[in-house]
Amino acid sequence: MKVGIIMGSDSDLPVMQEAAIILSQLGVEYQLTIVSAHRTPNRLVDYGKNAHNNGIGVIIAGAGGAAHLPGMIAAFTHLPVIGVPVKSSNMSGLDSLYSIVQMPPGVPVATVAINGARNAGILAAQIIGISNEEVANSVIEFKDSMNTEVLEKAAKVEEIGYQNYLNLKK
Amino acid sequence: MKVGIIMGSDSDLPVMQEAAIILSQLGVEYQLTIVSAHRTPNRLVDYGKNAHNNGIGVIIAGAGGAAHLPGMIAAFTHLPVIGVPVKSSNMSGLDSLYSIVQMPPGVPVATVAINGARNAGILAAQIIGISNEEVANSVIEFKDSMNTEVLEKAAKVEEIGYQNYLNLKK
Amino acid sequence: MKVGIIMGSDSDLPVMQEAAIILSQLGVEYQLTIVSAHRTPNRLVDYGKNAHNNGIGVIIAGAGGAAHLPGMIAAFTHLPVIGVPVKSSNMSGLDSLYSIVQMPPGVPVATVAINGARNAGILAAQIIGISNEEVANSVIEFKDSMNTEVLEKAAKVEEIGYQNYLNLKK
Amino acid sequence: MKVGIIMGSDSDLPVMQEAAIILSQLGVEYQLTIVSAHRTPNRLVDYGKNAHNNGIGVIIAGAGGAAHLPGMIAAFTHLPVIGVPVKSSNMSGLDSLYSIVQMPPGVPVATVAINGARNAGILAAQIIGISNEEVANSVIEFKDSMNTEVLEKAAKVEEIGYQNYLNLKK
Amino acid sequence: MKVGIIMGSDSDLPVMQEAAIILSQLGVEYQLTIVSAHRTPNRLVDYGKNAHNNGIGVIIAGAGGAAHLPGMIAAFTHLPVIGVPVKSSNMSGLDSLYSIVQMPPGVPVATVAINGARNAGILAAQIIGISNEEVANSVIEFKDSMNTEVLEKAAKVEEIGYQNYLNLKK
Amino acid sequence: MKVGIIMGSDSDLPVMQEAAIILSQLGVEYQLTIVSAHRTPNRLVDYGKNAHNNGIGVIIAGAGGAAHLPGMIAAFTHLPVIGVPVKSSNMSGLDSLYSIVQMPPGVPVATVAINGARNAGILAAQIIGISNEEVANSVIEFKDSMNTEVLEKAAKVEEIGYQNYLNLKK
Amino acid sequence: MKVGIIMGSDSDLPVMQEAAIILSQLGVEYQLTIVSAHRTPNRLVDYGKNAHNNGIGVIIAGAGGAAHLPGMIAAFTHLPVIGVPVKSSNMSGLDSLYSIVQMPPGVPVATVAINGARNAGILAAQIIGISNEEVANSVIEFKDSMNTEVLEKAAKVEEIGYQNYLNLKK
Amino acid sequence: MKVGIIMGSDSDLPVMQEAAIILSQLGVEYQLTIVSAHRTPNRLVDYGKNAHNNGIGVIIAGAGGAAHLPGMIAAFTHLPVIGVPVKSSNMSGLDSLYSIVQMPPGVPVATVAINGARNAGILAAQIIGISNEEVANSVIEFKDSMNTEVLEKAAKVEEIGYQNYLNLKK
Repeated sequence: MKVGIIMGSDSDLPVMQEAAIILSQLGVEYQLTIVSAHRTPNRLVDYGKNAHNNGIGVIIAGAGGAAHLPGMIAAFTHLPVIGVPVKSSNMSGLDSLYSIVQMPPGVPVATVAINGARNAGILAAQIIGISNEEVANSVIEFKDSMNTEVLEKAAKVEEIGYQNYLNLKK
Repeated sequence: MKVGIIMGSDSDLPVMQEAAIILSQLGVEYQLTIVSAHRTPNRLVDYGKNAHNNGIGVIIAGAGGAAHLPGMIAAFTHLPVIGVPVKSSNMSGLDSLYSIVQMPPGVPVATVAINGARNAGILAAQIIGISNEEVANSVIEFKDSMNTEVLEKAAKVEEIGYQNYLNLKK
Repeated sequence: MKVGIIMGSDSDLPVMQEAAIILSQLGVEYQLTIVSAHRTPNRLVDYGKNAHNNGIGVIIAGAGGAAHLPGMIAAFTHLPVIGVPVKSSNMSGLDSLYSIVQMPPGVPVATVAINGARNAGILAAQIIGISNEEVANSVIEFKDSMNTEVLEKAAKVEEIGYQNYLNLKK
Repeated sequence: MKVGIIMGSDSDLPVMQEAAIILSQLGVEYQLTIVSAHRTPNRLVDYGKNAHNNGIGVIIAGAGGAAHLPGMIAAFTHLPVIGVPVKSSNMSGLDSLYSIVQMPPGVPVATVAINGARNAGILAAQIIGISNEEVANSVIEFKDSMNTEVLEKAAKVEEIGYQNYLNLKK
Repeated sequence: MKVGIIMGSDSDLPVMQEAAIILSQLGVEYQLTIVSAHRTPNRLVDYGKNAHNNGIGVIIAGAGGAAHLPGMIAAFTHLPVIGVPVKSSNMSGLDSLYSIVQMPPGVPVATVAINGARNAGILAAQIIGISNEEVANSVIEFKDSMNTEVLEKAAKVEEIGYQNYLNLKK
Repeated sequence: MKVGIIMGSDSDLPVMQEAAIILSQLGVEYQLTIVSAHRTPNRLVDYGKNAHNNGIGVIIAGAGGAAHLPGMIAAFTHLPVIGVPVKSSNMSGLDSLYSIVQMPPGVPVATVAINGARNAGILAAQIIGISNEEVANSVIEFKDSMNTEVLEKAAKVEEIGYQNYLNLKK
Repeated sequence: MKVGIIMGSDSDLPVMQEAAIILSQLGVEYQLTIVSAHRTPNRLVDYGKNAHNNGIGVIIAGAGGAAHLPGMIAAFTHLPVIGVPVKSSNMSGLDSLYSIVQMPPGVPVATVAINGARNAGILAAQIIGISNEEVANSVIEFKDSMNTEVLEKAAKVEEIGYQNYLNLKK
Repeated sequence: MKVGIIMGSDSDLPVMQEAAIILSQLGVEYQLTIVSAHRTPNRLVDYGKNAHNNGIGVIIAGAGGAAHLPGMIAAFTHLPVIGVPVKSSNMSGLDSLYSIVQMPPGVPVATVAINGARNAGILAAQIIGISNEEVANSVIEFKDSMNTEVLEKAAKVEEIGYQNYLNLKK
């Protein structure tokens, strides 16, 4: 079962690649491509209708501004769709967030933070993990490693003091 | 040439009927129906692709919340699309407004005020009026009548004073 | 595999019951209870740590205002957590939405619309559906029935006109 | 039939020229000048009253901040007016957007996205296109070319992978 | 020297009458009427150009939504203009406030709080008071009476306790 | 050591009394009165300068709109000041919140939620509790009782089901 | 009659000097200094109480963030006070704007745009101009010169075309 | 009695060190470390439960985005908790502010301005100062020194004029 990662424009790629990177790290297969809701609407329809038959289990869709891609894909498939509001230049992503999260009753989009593509990838892994123990264990290990990393930093700052810690990071 | 009036849900009808009422008044033919971007996505595609062939010249689309209807119709047609952000219960229509107005380069939606269905109708008549003198004249007369109405109210309030004016309106 | 539905206060129940209702309709088992992040923090820890062992596969957490429940549950479990921002009296749920959706990298919450408990239930079913064909089919049927319902309303309004339609609804 | 492009200040020109550029591309004639609602109010009145007689069919008006230009031009003409909220330095264009879109019943402004001058030009062409088949065909071709461009980018990113794609763009 | 009180619609009168009431109380003459920037634009021009010759020294202009009246009057006169953002039904007056206060360099509007017509009246009196000792004294007495009123309430609540105080107000 | 509870107007009393009620419950002495920053500015100065000498250890100040009271009291005293943003009719308390919380470096105000007078009282008790074991214990017991109350509600809803629970509350 | 220009911090000087510059240009005398509401509260009281006796007729007060200076000065004087919301680093001046404009009934502040110090100066001159013909004439000439400047720019851009105009400005 | 300074990530350290710096200056002992609510939730629980026994009297907690740290620490301790909303990259700290300040009844967080770590330190000293005269005196002296500093700057700008003052600062 693969994760489909789509975005409205190649300008979203620097943000959306984070989903691909973390999915690789967690051992989850993905397919990444570009689907514009407004400029390639037929492609949007095809992608949504065929996602399940193409072996996709979860879809991650990122878009900015009016950001109709996640919600419209959700309209054409019964698969869970994760929406990533990409930060827009003029409204800092508030427009993207509202357009993605405020879906009407009947057609949800699982929305993550503005520019939260990394979390979209983790969420996709968590979703797959509920029926795939290997992926679930990847998520558990990943959470453990984050925990360890923070504990080490905390120990460091306590040991050397915050001034030295800040100097080291320069 | 007709105006197509669509909305995402029959709950938008009390707002959206204002577009129909003013178009009737201005002598412009219209067709009104329901098209849900998220619940009837295939109907959305059909409506957008066939609007021009069905004799529609301008589309008025109203929706609330994520409000993808106007922008997605605009993706499927070359006709001008007027978007009406319907006031939503939880975000007072800010979500509707941002979702409709913040369209990406290439696919505009002519956005009017929150719940501005009446203005959407007037705008549709203005658009048709640029090549239809009769409709243009209707718009001019309509603007004249608004002007007269305000002048009469102004004369009244100056004549009888604001207290009496307010008492009359009770 | 059950869905765990939790909320920060019994005052959230009128909103959050929508998740339970739709899950029943879609044939998905659930457990519903109250867990306050701020007033019963130990219960929060226990719930998060034991959810998986208690047979829960997906967690739906609703909260209003500072709304820490969904994100903190996500911190204590590797299961996917769906967050429902409950409309708050003083900020209309904007505070709830931002607190839930803006999770830091590493710990996502799948956020739905303000008061979107019904969609949280559908999303949980979609998630379970990726490895449970029966539930997936329930979701597909549910989407079909929504589609049909809108088509019938559209046909009705076209047939009898919007004035009669509005009169019927009174 | 020409499009009139006006803006409140020459500082809006870098944004507003996008309307002129796309209109040229779509084969639509335009006239561009500066009209300040607040600093040249008499010029505003003249422009609005004479636009139709000067052969203008659609007006594109861009302004930032209080941004009264589009709405006031709309008060003095029966022609359709497209408003472009120019991004302001202190409120990111939210003030411009609200001032332009929230017109009262009777006097609409067709509002596009913040800094959406390119879309204003496309919308003007769509409006002219409802009675001018040549312009309508330009719009259709333009939409086709956008579609093709995205499809090519999608094929490219699928073919070479996102890392290589991003490297090529550097 | 009179104060001119104008508003965009007679629906603003319940709010704007507060300016008239306090001006009467402070012994300042006023003229109140209706001027719609969008529906009676010629009247707007006339009002602005002739205000000074008509014996008006300060203008109070109230409007809601796009709220162009105060700023456009300011464009046509050198007199100080006080703007009252009238609370709008769909944006709670945020649109009115931004449209009135965010005037560009060169043409200020003295903006008061949303629905702050009473303060607009007081401000007009303060402005007249800088060259009219009688009016200045009225303002001083008014401020003294407010001070006394609060002191009396404070003494009361301290004397009888807040519970009794609240009971008395029921 | 007493808590001083002040508010800008007697219209804030229904909200601010919550601070008094919880302080009584927690066994902390308080003094409640009205001090208007704008209408009784000399009283503000006196209150701030004399608070410490009058036996006050913590000040709770509530105000709405421009809400200068908490910050100005903080300017005149070295005591900790807790600010309660009272919900305003036109901006839902956002103006109150920003005016209270965004104090410049050097003069903090401990801000609680909009209309959060109850929490202001608890916070004052927590502050006093750091050097008063009796009050600290009251806070601990209060937190325990909240915990117990939620646990009982959770047990109830689990036992009888949410439908019955909601019926009981009707 | 002088204008008093005050600001909360010397960091506001780059913004607030614009008031001084335009007042000089318009031939109005001013006094500029620093008064911090929160760090020098006694100075605030003195300034407000003595402004009138010190020959000041209008006060311009600029402040950022919680921005209590304009409103508190207004509490201590009967003179008209113009408030300039200085753009803050963390909230772009929205906090400053709300704190200044949302004054309670009884104590107005004449608020101008965020960072609108230049307009504050012009407004002060307009206020003085209602009883000082020389200053009124300065304002009228200033408005004429703005008008002329825009007309010249408009003529230029029409004559040489927008591309050449933009090239000249580089 | 020490102040505990914690933050969600070492990326918050450049902001949060200001609390440590001012506490040193005011002669108050502190302990600074990193506690992530989401990545080290067990550490959060331990920190909250043991803070009092570890000799901590006041806790300063800084976090950005969803920013659950201050509120969750407050859930696990009866000590006063001061929350610092750290400016987030995508929402300028509005998300942090709302998540921290909008705590539900029963569990307050004393919230300071966005990035207001310095004020958090001063507030902690004020809190300790109510039972520690030495610290109270430090706060009084600190306030006096701020007052003096502003008075000196005011004298300087009055003496040499604002142009020279600005030149000196370059």
